[in-house]
Amino acid sequence: MITALAGGVGAARLLEGMVEVVDAATITAVVNVGDDTRLHGLHISPDLDTVLYTLAGLSDRGTGWGLAGESWTVMAELERLGGETWFRLGDRDLATHCYRTHRLDQGATLSEVTAELARARGVQVRLLPVSDDPVRTHLRLASGHEVPFQEYFVRLRHDVAVAAVRFAGADQARPAPGVLEAVDDAEVVVVCPSNPVVSIGPVVAVPGLLDHLRRRRDVVVAVSPIVAGAAIKGPAARLMAESGFEPSVVGVARWYAPWVSTLVVDRADEALAPAVEAEGVRCVVADTVMSDVRRAAELSRAVLGALGDGRR
Amino acid sequence: MITALAGGVGAARLLEGMVEVVDAATITAVVNVGDDTRLHGLHISPDLDTVLYTLAGLSDRGTGWGLAGESWTVMAELERLGGETWFRLGDRDLATHCYRTHRLDQGATLSEVTAELARARGVQVRLLPVSDDPVRTHLRLASGHEVPFQEYFVRLRHDVAVAAVRFAGADQARPAPGVLEAVDDAEVVVVCPSNPVVSIGPVVAVPGLLDHLRRRRDVVVAVSPIVAGAAIKGPAARLMAESGFEPSVVGVARWYAPWVSTLVVDRADEALAPAVEAEGVRCVVADTVMSDVRRAAELSRAVLGALGDGRR
Repeated sequence: MITALAGGVGAARLLEGMVEVVDAATITAVVNVGDDTRLHGLHISPDLDTVLYTLAGLSDRGTGWGLAGESWTVMAELERLGGETWFRLGDRDLATHCYRTHRLDQGATLSEVTAELARARGVQVRLLPVSDDPVRTHLRLASGHEVPFQEYFVRLRHDVAVAAVRFAGADQARPAPGVLEAVDDAEVVVVCPSNPVVSIGPVVAVPGLLDHLRRRRDVVVAVSPIVAGAAIKGPAARLMAESGFEPSVVGVARWYAPWVSTLVVDRADEALAPAVEAEGVRCVVADTVMSDVRRAAELSRAVLGALGDGRR
Repeated sequence: MITALAGGVGAARLLEGMVEVVDAATITAVVNVGDDTRLHGLHISPDLDTVLYTLAGLSDRGTGWGLAGESWTVMAELERLGGETWFRLGDRDLATHCYRTHRLDQGATLSEVTAELARARGVQVRLLPVSDDPVRTHLRLASGHEVPFQEYFVRLRHDVAVAAVRFAGADQARPAPGVLEAVDDAEVVVVCPSNPVVSIGPVVAVPGLLDHLRRRRDVVVAVSPIVAGAAIKGPAARLMAESGFEPSVVGVARWYAPWVSTLVVDRADEALAPAVEAEGVRCVVADTVMSDVRRAAELSRAVLGALGDGRR
């Protein structure tokens, strides 16, 4: 049994490699819902969809999000109408949101809908939203203005200074059914190479998660999303710095140290291994840049083996 | 100034003809919202859209609803997911619903959104939903089960016996801004050849409408949606019979008599003119089957002239 804490693209890639090396049915992914949004009346769960589409072999490998070979008829027409089109929703992707919203309106939980979508897409990995309750990431900009995640990430292209991050609703949220058990029962808990601040942050902000993770610290292995001082993708480095943490594998180690025992870093950061270990976190070096599925599978092997053969 | 009370396809066709014979900007259409529904989280206004698409020259002339040359990518994918697809939403049509829902979520009224959509589509006729408040047609079936309009109309193909019709929310609804004034100020109020029970019914169920229409009875002209005892399209005849009215121009005259002074009937019903007049309603005979725009324009001319030269 393996449990992965997952954000979007980086997590999806690691999981895509992981199903090459272990039975997909033994993997549970606990996925961030802080990016979820309601747009045009539709409930959109970007991280769940990225993981789902990737594991179904349907994702657009260029962008990392959305479906390959997507068409954009609805967006083009919406543009013609003068509607809001900065959040791009492909035609087939829209079907997912229609399905989800309809089922939620019927009273299904997000967990139930996610399981239905995974089944329909033939995905064997168990996908759990961290919570069925709303947890929404909001960013207070340096300007003082607070924006929801997608506005920061997509509309503003995360090219603005952030003063603070909060996870609205997190204190009231309950872990989705199976989430705490997945942490408790896992042989290995993998923290995917996702943004520590806005992808893993909302996951561990759900009451109960951090306590359970702390108790399982010995089996929690994180993959650093920071390589050579920069994020592979997205604003992880910038947000870490804005949160007062060095945007490096050492900063990641310090961030995760209370509940992560082992950090997998890229070979490019090999020299920082002693500094990582000085934070009280074992350091394992591997190739972490998943440019294709084969490399993702190799990284997964390294991650799942990290508890046994990591160097000290 | 002409004000039309409108349902869906029949109304759209008459209005399409009317703009050929009078300046579109002098026409206000007060449109039924009893068919409105929320599906997949989207606010759908079928009658407003049918009128809008038709006046924009974009409607599918085969079906009468939806857009010509529509594509169905979202529905096909939703079908693949096992979603609800009995209510067919084309890709470009979906953009309308996305736009509307987004604007309503932002706090715009249905009137405001409708005006925006009309502007974007280049429609000059002023389209007013009869109310910005929810008015929803529900049908109690002979089986005792109550269903919302679209389930009756689309899913059950109106092929079931109806025991009663009610307009949920109507008693709390306020006429949309401009609706009562449009009735008060019109030189002619045209009741389009729409279903008296479930298209015009919800319009006049909004408090205030009937009072204002009664006061303007002298200038209210209806076009019978029943020709030779049958509806051109849809369940008008059946629903009239189920409501205790003869499904004929005489039944229509009796239905509308309290607030309609003149009824335009098809030549096929010429022999029933005395029976119509016996209901206290002037009867004007014309060709009412609008098989093309030219015929719709001719019918419009007859309707707009009906107050002056109707036979007694």
